[in-house]
Amino acid sequence: MSTKKSIYKPGPIRGFPEWLPEERLVEQRWFDHIRRVFESYGYCNIETPSVEELDVLTAKGEVDKEIYVIERLHKDEGDKSEARLALHFDQTVPMARYVAMRFNDLVFPFKRYQMQRVWRGERPQMGRMREFYQCDIDIINVDNLPLSFDAEVASVMYEVLEGLNIGKVQVKISNRKILSGLMEIAGIDDETQKNKIFRVIDKIDKVSPSILEEELKNNIKNQTAYSYVQYYLDKAKSLKALASNQHLTQQADYIENLIGDKEFFNNQTFRLGVQEICTVLKSLDNGQILYPEHAFVVDLSIVRGLDYYTGTVYETQLLDVPEFTGSVCSGGRYDDLAGSYINKHLPGVGISLGFSRLFDVIRQTRPDLLGIGPKGPADVLMTVPENESDRPLAYEAARILRKQGVKVEMYHAPKKIGDQLKYAAKKNLPYVWFVRDGKHEVKNLATQAQEAADPNTWRG
Amino acid sequence: MSTKKSIYKPGPIRGFPEWLPEERLVEQRWFDHIRRVFESYGYCNIETPSVEELDVLTAKGEVDKEIYVIERLHKDEGDKSEARLALHFDQTVPMARYVAMRFNDLVFPFKRYQMQRVWRGERPQMGRMREFYQCDIDIINVDNLPLSFDAEVASVMYEVLEGLNIGKVQVKISNRKILSGLMEIAGIDDETQKNKIFRVIDKIDKVSPSILEEELKNNIKNQTAYSYVQYYLDKAKSLKALASNQHLTQQADYIENLIGDKEFFNNQTFRLGVQEICTVLKSLDNGQILYPEHAFVVDLSIVRGLDYYTGTVYETQLLDVPEFTGSVCSGGRYDDLAGSYINKHLPGVGISLGFSRLFDVIRQTRPDLLGIGPKGPADVLMTVPENESDRPLAYEAARILRKQGVKVEMYHAPKKIGDQLKYAAKKNLPYVWFVRDGKHEVKNLATQAQEAADPNTWRG
Repeated sequence: MSTKKSIYKPGPIRGFPEWLPEERLVEQRWFDHIRRVFESYGYCNIETPSVEELDVLTAKGEVDKEIYVIERLHKDEGDKSEARLALHFDQTVPMARYVAMRFNDLVFPFKRYQMQRVWRGERPQMGRMREFYQCDIDIINVDNLPLSFDAEVASVMYEVLEGLNIGKVQVKISNRKILSGLMEIAGIDDETQKNKIFRVIDKIDKVSPSILEEELKNNIKNQTAYSYVQYYLDKAKSLKALASNQHLTQQADYIENLIGDKEFFNNQTFRLGVQEICTVLKSLDNGQILYPEHAFVVDLSIVRGLDYYTGTVYETQLLDVPEFTGSVCSGGRYDDLAGSYINKHLPGVGISLGFSRLFDVIRQTRPDLLGIGPKGPADVLMTVPENESDRPLAYEAARILRKQGVKVEMYHAPKKIGDQLKYAAKKNLPYVWFVRDGKHEVKNLATQAQEAADPNTWRG
Repeated sequence: MSTKKSIYKPGPIRGFPEWLPEERLVEQRWFDHIRRVFESYGYCNIETPSVEELDVLTAKGEVDKEIYVIERLHKDEGDKSEARLALHFDQTVPMARYVAMRFNDLVFPFKRYQMQRVWRGERPQMGRMREFYQCDIDIINVDNLPLSFDAEVASVMYEVLEGLNIGKVQVKISNRKILSGLMEIAGIDDETQKNKIFRVIDKIDKVSPSILEEELKNNIKNQTAYSYVQYYLDKAKSLKALASNQHLTQQADYIENLIGDKEFFNNQTFRLGVQEICTVLKSLDNGQILYPEHAFVVDLSIVRGLDYYTGTVYETQLLDVPEFTGSVCSGGRYDDLAGSYINKHLPGVGISLGFSRLFDVIRQTRPDLLGIGPKGPADVLMTVPENESDRPLAYEAARILRKQGVKVEMYHAPKKIGDQLKYAAKKNLPYVWFVRDGKHEVKNLATQAQEAADPNTWRG
């Protein structure tokens, strides 16, 4: 059958990850776990199209996200009348558009999770991809959104990460209003100006202290404001030290004591910020001691770089995987993200897990944590009996086992049993089933133990 | 909080479907079912990137698929050195590329399923989308692929569709080699010429008999070939009538008797075609009577329009949903799809379910079959007790229930119980849980029955 062929060897496309079947099985296990946790708290799922109108995606000025536009290879005249489309770069903008568009069909507070691919045309590098999955939860409500949700999303994400068995996880919590209030006291009321400062401080873990210092100097011309930022960062440091390994209520108490200066509390924003973070901390376990001490920690140096956050902000660190730098899971509260599409006030809070980056960094640096197993989902390889009269029994056994939820791959040809066993071993499947002279036996490939079995009752 | 805002109202994007949460819940249930069936036969999952190199997608000359290319909004010089990328229009070409690229890491026969979005820039209309899910299974092997797989993929897809509870399902089976052999006897050996004839016959259910007739005349200049096609279509019709409501073995017998003329059997392709389809029919239930008589039927008028099919071909019809026109699930055997990327002979067989089209047509025309229920996944709404001292018990009950797999949405504020009940009713959740004076009660919202319950043992 082999004729001369012209071979074109396509290579991997940089930044667009693709896994082997055994890796994908672990990825599916992770997704299943995450979905189970989200749903166990009542979050409903939505999926939005891969594309939005380009005008929607660029409305917030997020052009630095390196948007991909799509275009038909064979355009025709009609296309010109249609809006230009682009692949979404996150799930927050699409969710906001979804909520506004379907406002009358949704029940509020609207609790949703979303697990889709997003696209960013960045330079690919380790853990930075052009196509990747995000797993997000958000709650959006009309007019007011209780702070209990700021606690809920943090605890849900903690449970998600903790259940992936990749070591200790720490969710860091902060509130933008505290620094925002200090800036107001120093005379900076302008949101754009404040956001610029947040964006500089957001680099705190990515740049050296001297570079941070320089950038702060360049961006804060107001001397009082500059000294308040220094004061704030100092206090953030001491608080972090104090707060580590303390229970949540204790951490809340530290904040009020530390951040100090009673006069600051005359500023409403500052006061609200302190109150909010204390409420969130105390709501996390509702006075019970549910979490290990490392689980949640106040870290005021966290402010996030996105303009739309207005209160609580989160980052998350893997304490036992230093190979993973930065935050695996981030988010915060926003005042009115969907409000640009509808004449309603729609505050929300959410947190987003950069799934593919996490999976890929663990896969490359700590494969031991993935627990890669078989190359297929089957529990059992059903062998084709050498004796033809046994074959109907084997087909029947496969059918009975499947009905009971056992995954059974039927071998495809009446080859020697040794060859069939080799196939099962190559795929790393757990069990092999034999029918011989009307009798059923099953072999555990890990222990090599083989024993009689009844397809009606066997469970593996 | 309401200030003057500039509102931009984005509308739906034609051809890019998006569902409400309660619709998405049903879609998830469908996906879960399909995945469970695929995995119960040992098919492993893979996902390929949304994009391929444009050259890979257009290699088979499939430009009529209306490919979408992607491009960074802000290109830079480096981009010119990279290959042009386009969204995949099916999962077959990406799978073939995957198998060739990862040949040494895979175990053969390679049985995989894939459930991803694909994109086609066609004019959107009812059931024809620009972005939609496909659910595919394929098996690829080196050099030879047993015909048992042609039977397996058909029976797996039958089980998938039958389990969606959308009425009776019929898989129609044919084999291209039979007509191909007749064409060879008439002197047409050229594959391109044969494929042209297949593409015309593929329109049999879409155009009137007179148009079909005319197109056949225009495309088959060879008079013997033309009369053989007429003969073939006549026989196909009689066979279809005979075969309906017959057991599989009986159907296989009809073929040999009917397609007739012993001299045809001197042609190897013709002979192989008849043998193959008989083998596939008989393998479907391995001599047992597993399926209702309508489940599988020989229909030689089915030839499929894609050039790469070389033997068995399938289409699938919903017998109880006339609103769904055409085939919901199609496929066939191909000789060497991955072979253009690697110097191996890699035959395969597969079948593809046009998931989103099916879901959307049922949703629009037969919503009764979807069984749309709650607007969220929660089994239970846990109310916040009016009495503050009961609240820790409610939080604890939610936690205990979740641990046992019950999905519990915690209400978000200590509002009046009536308001909390209204929220559960609006979301159409099945149960509401109350804690009062330390006692637990649960209410079934469908029956309105309320009774004492223990979070440690309650299962709904």
